[in-house]
Formats: sequence, C-alpha cells, structure tokens
Amino acid sequence: MKGYRLLVACLDQPGIIAAISHVLARNGCNITSFDQYSEGPAGLFFMRAEFDMVHHSGDFDHEKLISEFDRLALEYHMQWRLTERDRAHHLAVLVSREDHCLNELLWQTERGDIHAEISVIISNHEDLRELAEHFRIPFYYIPVTPAQKAQSEEKLHQLVRDYAIDTLVLARYMQILSEDFVSQYPAQIINIHHSFLPAFVGPKPYHQAYERGVKLIGATAHYVTAELDAGPIIEQDVHRVDHRHQLDDFKRIGRQVERIVLARAVKWHVADRVLVYGNRTVVFPI
Amino acid sequence: MKGYRLLVACLDQPGIIAAISHVLARNGCNITSFDQYSEGPAGLFFMRAEFDMVHHSGDFDHEKLISEFDRLALEYHMQWRLTERDRAHHLAVLVSREDHCLNELLWQTERGDIHAEISVIISNHEDLRELAEHFRIPFYYIPVTPAQKAQSEEKLHQLVRDYAIDTLVLARYMQILSEDFVSQYPAQIINIHHSFLPAFVGPKPYHQAYERGVKLIGATAHYVTAELDAGPIIEQDVHRVDHRHQLDDFKRIGRQVERIVLARAVKWHVADRVLVYGNRTVVFPI
Amino acid sequence: MKGYRLLVACLDQPGIIAAISHVLARNGCNITSFDQYSEGPAGLFFMRAEFDMVHHSGDFDHEKLISEFDRLALEYHMQWRLTERDRAHHLAVLVSREDHCLNELLWQTERGDIHAEISVIISNHEDLRELAEHFRIPFYYIPVTPAQKAQSEEKLHQLVRDYAIDTLVLARYMQILSEDFVSQYPAQIINIHHSFLPAFVGPKPYHQAYERGVKLIGATAHYVTAELDAGPIIEQDVHRVDHRHQLDDFKRIGRQVERIVLARAVKWHVADRVLVYGNRTVVFPI
Amino acid sequence: MKGYRLLVACLDQPGIIAAISHVLARNGCNITSFDQYSEGPAGLFFMRAEFDMVHHSGDFDHEKLISEFDRLALEYHMQWRLTERDRAHHLAVLVSREDHCLNELLWQTERGDIHAEISVIISNHEDLRELAEHFRIPFYYIPVTPAQKAQSEEKLHQLVRDYAIDTLVLARYMQILSEDFVSQYPAQIINIHHSFLPAFVGPKPYHQAYERGVKLIGATAHYVTAELDAGPIIEQDVHRVDHRHQLDDFKRIGRQVERIVLARAVKWHVADRVLVYGNRTVVFPI
Repeated sequence: MKGYRLLVACLDQPGIIAAISHVLARNGCNITSFDQYSEGPAGLFFMRAEFDMVHHSGDFDHEKLISEFDRLALEYHMQWRLTERDRAHHLAVLVSREDHCLNELLWQTERGDIHAEISVIISNHEDLRELAEHFRIPFYYIPVTPAQKAQSEEKLHQLVRDYAIDTLVLARYMQILSEDFVSQYPAQIINIHHSFLPAFVGPKPYHQAYERGVKLIGATAHYVTAELDAGPIIEQDVHRVDHRHQLDDFKRIGRQVERIVLARAVKWHVADRVLVYGNRTVVFPI
Repeated sequence: MKGYRLLVACLDQPGIIAAISHVLARNGCNITSFDQYSEGPAGLFFMRAEFDMVHHSGDFDHEKLISEFDRLALEYHMQWRLTERDRAHHLAVLVSREDHCLNELLWQTERGDIHAEISVIISNHEDLRELAEHFRIPFYYIPVTPAQKAQSEEKLHQLVRDYAIDTLVLARYMQILSEDFVSQYPAQIINIHHSFLPAFVGPKPYHQAYERGVKLIGATAHYVTAELDAGPIIEQDVHRVDHRHQLDDFKRIGRQVERIVLARAVKWHVADRVLVYGNRTVVFPI
Repeated sequence: MKGYRLLVACLDQPGIIAAISHVLARNGCNITSFDQYSEGPAGLFFMRAEFDMVHHSGDFDHEKLISEFDRLALEYHMQWRLTERDRAHHLAVLVSREDHCLNELLWQTERGDIHAEISVIISNHEDLRELAEHFRIPFYYIPVTPAQKAQSEEKLHQLVRDYAIDTLVLARYMQILSEDFVSQYPAQIINIHHSFLPAFVGPKPYHQAYERGVKLIGATAHYVTAELDAGPIIEQDVHRVDHRHQLDDFKRIGRQVERIVLARAVKWHVADRVLVYGNRTVVFPI
Repeated sequence: MKGYRLLVACLDQPGIIAAISHVLARNGCNITSFDQYSEGPAGLFFMRAEFDMVHHSGDFDHEKLISEFDRLALEYHMQWRLTERDRAHHLAVLVSREDHCLNELLWQTERGDIHAEISVIISNHEDLRELAEHFRIPFYYIPVTPAQKAQSEEKLHQLVRDYAIDTLVLARYMQILSEDFVSQYPAQIINIHHSFLPAFVGPKPYHQAYERGVKLIGATAHYVTAELDAGPIIEQDVHRVDHRHQLDDFKRIGRQVERIVLARAVKWHVADRVLVYGNRTVVFPI
C-alpha cells in the first residue's frame, strides 16, 4: 500500500475541500490525515493530506491522479505538490566546529525519529570529520575565505547536485551564504539561530543576551533568505536562565535548546509539514 | 452571515471527507476551519468543521442541510451534531469556598475569551455569594449533607432545567456527585482536579504531592464519570516546585495552574472542540 | 517574634559571610533563609537573609544591630538595607484601559499571595474606576496630554507622597513617564512590557510579533529607566502560538502571560528578593 | 588554587552559619558559592558551600580545617562532607538495549557539561558494546536471569570496587536490583523512570499513560531504594502530547524527556548539589 502526501496552497473559495477530496476519493485514495488552515474570509487556504492508495496501485492511477489535479489546479489557481511518503529525503548538513546539532540530527535520523537521510556533511573546518566517518557519511571540507567565497559556493552547488540534495541544514555553520546562493534554494535551507529571534540578530547572540540580562534564552529554526536571520520562522523554544548563569552557562543551556529546536524543524520540514507564505510559516506539527 | 459548527464521529472509511464536504459545498456552506483526526487504518474518524452560510440564509437551507446530513449519517453510520456558532452556551458553575477558579471563569467569560455565559453559580457554602452578586449572576446555596444528598442533587437538576444549562463546571466544588446524577450528563460535567492525574487521585492531592517530594505539581481538567477522578482528560498542565516550597506554596502555585487549566478546558468545550471516545478525548485547540 | 530581611551588596572579599552572620548571631538573630550570590573571583557579592529576633526583641536590640551593621558597612564598603518583614509595602498601580494586570494584582494582594497593599490606583482614563471602587481602593483620574505632562507628573509625585508609596507598578499604563520623573524612583517603578524583550521594543509589540511570524510570544517585567523598555529585567515568560493565531489571539494569550509575569515580579520585589546592579538583576525567587 | 565543596546537614540552630563561615574564614577559605535551606523554625538545616583556598594551600591547612570541622560537628551534631572540586567523580552506567540515555551521558561527560567520568558501562545485553567501544570505555556484559541474579549482582559489586565507582546510573537498565544490593549504595544509585512519578509506577509506563489518555508525559530521575520507583526524586520534567500521538510517539517524545531529565540529575548529583533527607531531596541546581 503506497502512501502519499498532498500539499495545496491557494486563495480560499467555497467548495475547495469538496473538490480536492472528491478527486482523491474517486481515485481510490483513503485520506489518513488531513490538516487545513484558512486565513480570513477572503484569505489564503493551506492544506496537507496524507493518503493511501487502497483499491489498486501502480503508475497508471498515479498519472490519472496527477492529471486530474492538474485540471483542478487550473480551475482553482492552486499551487500543489504530491510526494511519496516513503521516498527518502536527502539532507546536506553544513557545520563548522560545534557538534551538538549535527549529533542530534545523526542520532534522530539513524533511529528514524526524523524520516530523512543525511547524504553528506560539509564543513569549513576538519573538526567533525571523525564524527561523520563514524556514521559512515561522506564528509567534505570546504574552507571559506572572503576571496574564495564564490568558489566555495560553487563546490556546494556541485555537492547538492551530486547527492541529489533536497534540503540544506545549517547546523551551526558559522558562515553567511551569499544572496545569490540562497536565492537558488527557496525554503530549502534551514538554519538554527542561537537566539529567540528577532532578539539578538547577528553574531554572538549569547553575549548579547547575557549583556541584556534576559531571564530566558532561546533558539530559532528558520528558512534562510537574503536578509540575515530574517527568514520565515519554523520553530522556536526557550529555556530559563538566572543571574547565576554566566556566559558559558548560556552557551551550555543554549546548546540543548538549539539541537531540539533544529531537530523539530527538520523533522517537520522533511515530512512536508511546513508551508511558507510571505515571511510566515504554516506548520502542521506532530 | 450565519456560522455553524459540525462535529462528526464514525468509523473511518474512504471518501468520507469528500461526502461531507460535498454536502456542505452544494448547500452554500463555506468551510472556514476544518480539523480531522483518524485513528489507525480501520479506526475511528473524528471531524470538526466551522462554516459560514454564504449564498443565502434562513430556515429553509438549514432544514435541507440537516436532512441531507441525516441521510449521510445513515449511509456512513455517523454520529453528528450541528451547532450555531453564536448560540450562547449556558454554564452552571459549582463552587465551595475557593474563589480562584470561579474568578477566572467570570473574568474570561465577561471579556469574551471564553464564549459562554455563566447562567448560575451554585455552592454548598455562602462564601462566594458576594462575588456572584458583584457580577450580577444568580447564586444558589445548596447545602450538602450525607443524609440529604439526593435532595440536594434534585435541586441541582431543577436549576439545570430552569436555566437551560448546557454544561456544569465543578470549579473546586468539594463534593462528589452521585453516580446516578453523573450518568445523566455524559461529557457535560467538567471538573478541575488539583493534581497531575492519575497521580494523587482523591482528597488532598497537594498533601500527597508534598509528601512524595515531587518536582512538578499539576492540575487536570476532565469530564466527570462514575469513577472518581478517572474520566476523560481534557487538559493538564504543571508548574515547577522545589524543596523550598512548603504545602502552602504548593497550594498557592497550584491555584494558578488550576484556574488556567480549567479555563482552557471550558473554552475548548464550549466551542465544540472536544470529542470524547471511550475514556479519551480528541481536542482541536486554539 | 519579629522578622527582618537584610540585603547586602558589596565587592566580594574573604570572610564576609562570617562577618555578617557573626553580627547576626551575637545579636540574637536566627537566620531562617539565606541566599547569596558572588559573581566571579574579584566580583560582586549579593546577599539576602531573613531572620527572627529570638532571644529578646524591642527597640534597643534593633538599634544595636543597626549600629553594628553601620560599622561593618564601613569596613567592607557594603551597601545594605534592613526591613521589617511585616511592614506593609505600599503600591501605587497605574493603569490605562486594560484591566487584566490590575485584576491579577488586586486578587493576589487581597488573598495575600503578594504581601503588599495597593494604596492607590491611578489612571489616565476613567474605565477602571468601578473596579477600584469595588475593592475600596482610592482611584485618581489624571489625564495626560503632551501639553500638561509636567503637571500630570506633579500630581503623581503628590500621590506618591500622600500615600507613602514604596513602589509604582505600571500595569499596562500606556504612557511614557519623563526621564526626570523616572530618575527620582530608581528600582521603584516596575513596568510590564507585552513582548519578550529586547524583541519588539516600543509600541504595538503584538503587531510586530504577528508580522514577524514568531512561534512564542512573551512578556517582560522590568524596572523603568530613562531608556524606553531597556531597564533591568526582573522576569520574563512566554507562551506558544502558531499560524492559526491571529492578532487578537496574540493579545488574548499575551494577557495571560502579562499578568502572571507582572504578578511574579511584584511578589519578588516587595519581598526584597530583587537586587539591581548595572542593568541586571539578581533575583532570589520563591 | 584548590577548590572545595562543603555539605552540611543538621538541626537548625541559631549561629550555625556564623560558626561554619567563621571556621572557613580563619582557615583562609574564600566562599564562592553558598546555598542554604532551613525547613521550619525547629527544623532541618542544609548547606552547600564552594570555596577556594586563597592564602595558602597544601595538606597542612587541609587537615587543620578538617579537625576544626570535626569539633564543630560534635558541637552542632552536624553531618558533613568535604570534597575536592576537581576530583573526578566515577560513574558506572548500566544499560539494557536503549541507547538514548547513555548517548546523552557520553556526550555531556565528554564535553564537560557533566563533570564526571564514565568509568565503565555494564549491560545485560550486547547491543551497546559498539557505542561504548567508540568512546573507549570498558564494556561488561552481565546477563541477568532469575536463577543467577545473586551472581550477577556479585559481579556488579566487583566492578564497582575495581573501578572505584562513586555512583551507579541506571540509564534505562530494565532490571530490578535486589533490596540487598540497593541497600549498600544509599543515594548512590540514580534511576530514570519513564513516567511522571508517582503516576505509572512499574513496567510499561508509556502504555499506561497512553491508555489513560494523559495530555503530558514525563520522566523522573530518582535515587533507588528498596521500594520500586519510590525513592527520593531528584528531577522531573514533562512534554505535551495530544490525541494524534500514538504509543510510538509517546516513546519517541519520552526519550527526549528521559535523557534530559537524567542528565540534569547526574550533573547535579556529581557536583554535590543534591542532599537527601527522608524520602525527599534538597537540590541546589545550576
């Protein structure tokens, strides 16, 4: 029994759920999960459905379903995407020296809590090569210098192509990707920023948080856009601190928040549970 | 523009969302919110939809919609319920001496955060009469003694009828209602228990929690069933305590958790966001 | 048995706890609670002790204790303060139109969860007069216009003097006090800002938060200083939101966070549990 | 500069802080951290101090300090303990098949977030041998059968002696140690139970939680005593679940809570931040 995920975004209009579910029903699809969100009376409509092919399976039905959806999409001006539930989602994880976020992703993908495969690990330092090798994942060292930035990014593009990467995860990758690079992967690059954005944009957020004397520190997973730390937020969380916590404690506690927040964001992203519109996200979490 | 809420529960089966949404669409209903949950492949199907009547309105359409749903219900063996969004939901709040939960419900209903009306306040003590009167809500003092329990409950029944009560809320009402009484209001009596159930069932849960040396204390809002503190849970939350907190601190901190948890449960219940099956609840919160 | 609270701040130096506790011991004081915090090896020392006068009581001992502390303070360059535990702390609460924060403070002071007395309620609107009167607390309407700001603040000063106010609480008081006014009450004015500072400084933070698409909204209680929303933070907390929450939901959920955060900050402040240094606070909470 | 930690427990009595801090001061100890807790007027007194030897160092001072404390202990009927801050704390981690708790302890001890050394890993299964070997930690496979329980525990005792183990950590070790074994390590065996105790004592707590329909699941780290899952609680935490979470989701989410709760408990325990009295703990966390 084959499973699929259908994502739809369009302007809200009467009868749209009926139209979509009717196409699914008459093609032998049994909806197992259905999430929908409409914003305002004349607003946007977002939908995510999981369904199984119950009666038959095979390519024929698949093509018929797709062609019917194409017609529906024209009629309702829908953006839509159909993905096979069991298709492996390929991640490239970019890191610098810190291992906690990478560790969490390795651990959760390996045990299946995140349904994705880390196809390649890329770093501007050699520090985490051994960790990658222990998990038998190809590791590429791509140093980044101001002079050679374009060249480094060209190597990144090449790896994305070579490994058929779906999503790049910046797991404490302490480099800023160029606007040109970023623009080629819309909603395909996830970053973990070590603050509760939009507080403490930019470098050294824990220093900033410590200086300000905050009582909670946080982390933010977001899609990367041209503007630094300003892309659509996928997930955020915080942890309590107090006056006894020094900068090192902020970093230590923060590491726990970072890896959990990033892992959640990646888990939802690879399961097609995140839809982007403007600078916001609709997240149907589990 | 009239708004409605439709609740459906049945065995899951292919085409059910299509069938329901089709009926809604051809009767001029525009779905504004749609939540669905299916448990397992051969499992249960739960649905909650909010919709507006866009094309026309009036009694005729309403009756046609209902008759079409009656037919659908037969075909799919559905349980269903249709409620008008703007119909006032009438609450009877039962209290003893503690005012914090009642206060919260008064405050949230008055400012419209909970879309319901407290029609009557009933107590086995006189302490909270003044509070009720300040909010201009009828207050009834019904003392409860073992000898006169049946008589007291008869008065309760009478008030429920007189005020057309939809739901009874036990807001720290320190009396146990009889099995017979409870059985007449299935999923219509909400209690707040001052512990994280199933820990500390029964009387004096804060004493029990303090004795056990727990590091979190909680509260549980649940539907009342014949078995004490064992009904379907609607909402739970906790707050951190430590060794410095004495029994009085447990009670003080607990009061904050109790009133928040109870208010959430009532808010969701009166908005038809809670569905009960067996001893569990499906909650579509906001 | 009389209870006292002793607060000390100075440079850390060997023997300081011994010296202080020795003075307390030989004056018949039994320490019931002792919190201390030292920042770094050559850093600052903060201390809070609660003690009972066990052997004797009366003015004579009190004066002797004070004179011994005066000597100690000279020797160790200490700042210190001794307060009677049972002395009533007088609050002036300033509000505009929103009642949720005021309500919480009224409720918690009345039932003794916050050990303080609301001596006067001051507003630039008439809306909350009835609420104040229900609690039998003097209410003053002081309109604020740009032209008459100085005059309004003079009236505020007068009320602070008339009611022997210890602390001003801005419980959603939507006016900015002048730098001159603020400078006269260092660490004596507490404000609740409806965002997780330093995110969303200034007006309409919920609008800002909604625009940014954050996944948590927060509130911050802080001492007011000349710089807007930049004073020492006493307490912060957050609550989860998602794409389904519109601006009104942000405000509704935010109200819950605001009143809880403000009540905690006031509770700790009036119990001398907050020490300010630079732009930071040491908080010994309970 | 040598650092020490001093732990004291006794009946509360006037002058005790003065007496202790005086001994420390005149032996050249500079207190860097001081936590104290007194329970009730005629109750118990608990204290934890960290101090540096500032003036001199060396064995002579150390012995003088100890002999002075011995005298003080007699006078005040104190239980006390002095530990060197830099002495390595040796852990034996006992596991079965699940790796998440062990992984977390390995990661946090390796990077120094937990100041301890995992000296040996012991299991009743072979599954985690490879993980142990990757971290170059001795791994012992000790199968447990009802018939050979005494023999298995004898091997455990031997390893504790061989590796000079300070604390045994049961990191999802699915075996119940005998009363006799447990009695030999009071407050030296830490277990992680995968529920919010005292809810769901015993086996399969996630099944129990799922059946009961709770809205939060938790984990509890506690010292092991003769009575199952009833020892003094060190730390607890919870995570939200809802109707969409099936048993496998409970386990998945629970694993995150378990490893964080256990790591916190071990971190505090090895830093002498946990004091036990009766069935309760005083925890001075950081």
